[in-house]
Amino acid sequence: MKISIERAALLKAVSQAQSVVERRNTIPILANVLIEAEGSDVMFRATDLDIEVVDKAPAQVERAGATTVSATTLHEIVRKLPDGALVTLTADAAAGRLTVEAGRSNFSLATLPKEDFPVMASSEYASNFSIEAAKLRRLFDKSKFAISTEETRYYLNGVYMHVSTGEDGKVLRCVATDGHRLARIDTDLPAGAEDMPGVIVPRKTVGELRKLLDDDEMKIAVSVSETKVRFATPEITLTSKVIDGTFPDYTRVIPQGNTRKLEVDASDFARAVDRVATVSSERSRAVKLQLDEDRLILSVNAPDSGAAEEELAVSYNDERLEIGFNAKYLLEIASQVDRENAVFMFNSSGDPTLMREGNDMSAVYVVMPMRV
Amino acid sequence: MKISIERAALLKAVSQAQSVVERRNTIPILANVLIEAEGSDVMFRATDLDIEVVDKAPAQVERAGATTVSATTLHEIVRKLPDGALVTLTADAAAGRLTVEAGRSNFSLATLPKEDFPVMASSEYASNFSIEAAKLRRLFDKSKFAISTEETRYYLNGVYMHVSTGEDGKVLRCVATDGHRLARIDTDLPAGAEDMPGVIVPRKTVGELRKLLDDDEMKIAVSVSETKVRFATPEITLTSKVIDGTFPDYTRVIPQGNTRKLEVDASDFARAVDRVATVSSERSRAVKLQLDEDRLILSVNAPDSGAAEEELAVSYNDERLEIGFNAKYLLEIASQVDRENAVFMFNSSGDPTLMREGNDMSAVYVVMPMRV
Repeated sequence: MKISIERAALLKAVSQAQSVVERRNTIPILANVLIEAEGSDVMFRATDLDIEVVDKAPAQVERAGATTVSATTLHEIVRKLPDGALVTLTADAAAGRLTVEAGRSNFSLATLPKEDFPVMASSEYASNFSIEAAKLRRLFDKSKFAISTEETRYYLNGVYMHVSTGEDGKVLRCVATDGHRLARIDTDLPAGAEDMPGVIVPRKTVGELRKLLDDDEMKIAVSVSETKVRFATPEITLTSKVIDGTFPDYTRVIPQGNTRKLEVDASDFARAVDRVATVSSERSRAVKLQLDEDRLILSVNAPDSGAAEEELAVSYNDERLEIGFNAKYLLEIASQVDRENAVFMFNSSGDPTLMREGNDMSAVYVVMPMRV
Repeated sequence: MKISIERAALLKAVSQAQSVVERRNTIPILANVLIEAEGSDVMFRATDLDIEVVDKAPAQVERAGATTVSATTLHEIVRKLPDGALVTLTADAAAGRLTVEAGRSNFSLATLPKEDFPVMASSEYASNFSIEAAKLRRLFDKSKFAISTEETRYYLNGVYMHVSTGEDGKVLRCVATDGHRLARIDTDLPAGAEDMPGVIVPRKTVGELRKLLDDDEMKIAVSVSETKVRFATPEITLTSKVIDGTFPDYTRVIPQGNTRKLEVDASDFARAVDRVATVSSERSRAVKLQLDEDRLILSVNAPDSGAAEEELAVSYNDERLEIGFNAKYLLEIASQVDRENAVFMFNSSGDPTLMREGNDMSAVYVVMPMRV
């Protein structure tokens, strides 16, 4: 194999690859990126056995072929090369070396045979559709904070992507929860997604997917089967196993009958919560909300370090209510609101509370109260 | 005590205080900042028993007095208050509380009695002089990277500031070394510093001092005794114990007879060293320099991961030389050069190498070679 490739294109491909590769590998080949040159394209492939990413980069292929080399070492080298450099990669299979040349720099890296690289088996996908990057990004960006990190509840360690029914008909929906808070985000159902099986997309896949979604207008090709999900741009294909489990029936958690409505400027609210939480000890970060006619008092009482109180002008026209929440959860939820006021719907101080942006039902959050 | 103070002035004072306070304290009062209000000034004092910082901030003192409160909690609160806020601090000695008010925010923090706060004993200083912030900054910025972290050689855990003789007469000199590399930085001797005892300024003090030196033109008042050093701006006074030990005779380490001269663009050199070091394993980061008529070849050979080589056009007119260095040390030294070419003076591959900026002898570095 011998190819010449622009440093920028190589860096992009190798960055994606090294990010999928796990830092600590017991299987040496999993630390490597598989480079395959054929025609006028070069494919860079990396995997952790659960996720596979393939990046197709334009290059001048002088001699077709393939090899594998440490993804992090190659990434470090390319990152440090000067902008605009032309990089030549030459594989010497007999010597087990890949030569990387750019200007007066010359590197010789140890390789492993391409035959040892575990290429993910191809699948039949039950559903194939396409969706704008901006829409997909919203679905995952607004839900991922609620993903559970408890390994024992492995079926909560991802975002549940499925077809459901919203207020105006069928929607593509993403839900995540850790039992304390829940995010439910909807978007119009893309054509072709009607029969998509519901899948739990693992946390790491959500993170890798995010890197494909920077260009708002880009169409992302999505393919879903019972066991795998695939997201593809013209250059990059990300394939991932999905979590083999059943996502709990989240609909029962979303309160329907909450009638006490609080409307508040989301960023004022978040800043006030952040300030009063300062005095609380790390362990019990409880913030108390006292609601009265158009008035919200946020307070924290931490016996060892002190107390804090802050008043906010809000819109509230129901009876007096006192309710406590984990400060971190309130902050995370308030920071999801990007355009309108945050609307909180309460029932009693012991019941789950619902939060949404203005009257928009396409992004709904639920948070459990804490006793204060 | 009751004072009103601008958020910006309070934040500046409390930032400096919380930075001196150690994160883990076994003595509770050491986590606190002592606030003393009298006349039209408020003093904020913090200490770790080795360093004491006092910041005088303009405030409206309604009732004189003093109290102590957690430096990190107060810092966090003030940081989160909106820009331009006016903050009122009210101490209630009977209740053992400090109230912090700003707008609709209200905090009540636990205090400890001011009598328990360990104020550093005042000293007689043998020498008092003043020096521009820019000059003091250069002395410490260019030497601190060479401070040793080995606790057993405690007398190397700081910068040795003393009076010495440079090429053009008496100088104020800072030296740091860890036995592998050494930095020696000179500046004109300020009037009044002639009889200054040599002192070893601890690493943490060097870091805290740095924050006082952002304004180039500011005059810093320096006072030195055998056991303490003090740096003062009109607002902030930083007093520190010095390391009780004898700094080794560094002059013997600085080679005088090195005649083989290499001149190289410092940033090209640093980037090339950084690139070739990529392939080396963390443990033995040795880079080999091969010098020949106006040509430098940098190379690394790491049996497990690979090899790297890079050629640089340089100025060198002596006989062929091969010498190895720790990549990290070479990088750090090359990054000290800010205006001119780096000039390396070699003797043999086993002898210490000297580096300076162009012909400037006021900043000299020594680095020990490694066998490669």
